[in-house]
Amino acid sequence: MNFVESLKLKQDLVNNNLEKLMQISDAPKKIVEAMKYSLFAGGKRIRPVLSIAVCEALGGNAMELLDLACCIEMIHTYSLIHDDLPAMDNDDFRRGKPTNHKVYGEAIAILAGDALLNYAFEIALNAIKKNNYHKKYTDALIEISKSSGITGMIGGQVIDITSVGNEIDENLLFGMHYKKTGKLIEASCAIGAIIADRYEMLDNVKNYSYNLGIAFQIVDDILDVTGDKEKLGKSIGKDLKDNKPTFVTIFGLEKAKMLANKFSKDAADIALKIDESKFLYELTNYLLTRES
Amino acid sequence: MNFVESLKLKQDLVNNNLEKLMQISDAPKKIVEAMKYSLFAGGKRIRPVLSIAVCEALGGNAMELLDLACCIEMIHTYSLIHDDLPAMDNDDFRRGKPTNHKVYGEAIAILAGDALLNYAFEIALNAIKKNNYHKKYTDALIEISKSSGITGMIGGQVIDITSVGNEIDENLLFGMHYKKTGKLIEASCAIGAIIADRYEMLDNVKNYSYNLGIAFQIVDDILDVTGDKEKLGKSIGKDLKDNKPTFVTIFGLEKAKMLANKFSKDAADIALKIDESKFLYELTNYLLTRES
Repeated sequence: MNFVESLKLKQDLVNNNLEKLMQISDAPKKIVEAMKYSLFAGGKRIRPVLSIAVCEALGGNAMELLDLACCIEMIHTYSLIHDDLPAMDNDDFRRGKPTNHKVYGEAIAILAGDALLNYAFEIALNAIKKNNYHKKYTDALIEISKSSGITGMIGGQVIDITSVGNEIDENLLFGMHYKKTGKLIEASCAIGAIIADRYEMLDNVKNYSYNLGIAFQIVDDILDVTGDKEKLGKSIGKDLKDNKPTFVTIFGLEKAKMLANKFSKDAADIALKIDESKFLYELTNYLLTRES
Repeated sequence: MNFVESLKLKQDLVNNNLEKLMQISDAPKKIVEAMKYSLFAGGKRIRPVLSIAVCEALGGNAMELLDLACCIEMIHTYSLIHDDLPAMDNDDFRRGKPTNHKVYGEAIAILAGDALLNYAFEIALNAIKKNNYHKKYTDALIEISKSSGITGMIGGQVIDITSVGNEIDENLLFGMHYKKTGKLIEASCAIGAIIADRYEMLDNVKNYSYNLGIAFQIVDDILDVTGDKEKLGKSIGKDLKDNKPTFVTIFGLEKAKMLANKFSKDAADIALKIDESKFLYELTNYLLTRES
């Protein structure tokens, strides 16, 4: 099986499981519809695919972490819904489709975000129980909860919105993105090692995901300047217009590209060491040479 | 020790533990400040006090559930912050103080809510780990997560905001309040039984909290009509002005008072059976004869 087939297989696994988890009959239809709208808006399932890839690379059974991996995708999706709100980034489009609040109104969008975060924990806690309360499931969920909280994603978002229009230095820029994007990517990889019961690999895996996460964000910032609106499904130059500090505004385009290459290479090198099958290596290259 | 002293002791336990849990050094100051603003805005700690009371009534050690009980208070607080937002109930005051978004702006208020929900799970998951992954802690957290999600509190809030201005029947009114307020009160009591390792008492305890939760909400609706603005710390007649269906608008004031008495009496009767010390009985009366 080549890389593209293997990627598709993992994405299908995630999508099918998300469909199953979102078959909910005992909640108001409107909120389930709003949650599904954003959850199935065309995301590439990068985070859960990373979880599966790391788990399999380390000899684990990816089926054991599928619910937890989907729970990360739900958390990622909730953060996008809330980030897009008028009070935050005020975005009308994401992946070429109207944002959640544009379709359902602000009140339902706020609740759909809340609901996805809460449901992620419901799903994950059920997974712990289903697996006879084995400690590794709780350990994995601890990684997820830390990565999405105030010392992780939410903390990064706070730095982001409070730094608009302000001068920030390189350290704060790295710190902000490590928290805002990097931490959840780190948790995605970490749960792969934990569910594979390869705790001794955690440092290695986190080193990989640190480099991947930073490279991923730099590429994002570069695409905001050089990307193709059609391919990206959102407007170009938005960060600049919003006065947001990015790797491009702080370092300039050329240095940003050099940095992207450096972090990409480091991530790819570690990927080769972690995963003999080379899937993780190819996934790394795929993510960091993307056009959308 | 009389009831008032015993109540104060439990509230102090909760407040001291919340203070301890909110000593956070590795997150942006602004978000911690916003979280603490609402968490320490004068709440009576009803839910965690219920957890402690039920746990002690059933022979458990309340110290074992203190973190979980505080996690319920955080979830309750996050729901108030989001409910008060301009896109939701658009409230400027709560408990006599400006609401979170009035002080910190909408973006930080949304994130402070998200942060409290996420942090509640972080705290609770750490409690599971600290207690050697004992299954009862996971079971308790499952109760909490279900009660705050789309089949519980969030579901109730969705029914609430989508029913503004619409005719709703008695069943939907009961269902809405059972979900919006009752479920988290139910979970507060349920974790008391679970941490006391008295699973066989869960039905009894849930029967108690069902009656308590409904009575509590009817009293709330009555106070919105007959209450004292100063004592309540918020404006009177807001539900009516907002065209919200309440127990008073659906049943009329007299029948609403009769219903409050009926559910209160049922709750108090079960409280006497659960708790020999009578604390739960007195707490029930205290909550249901309150003026704010």
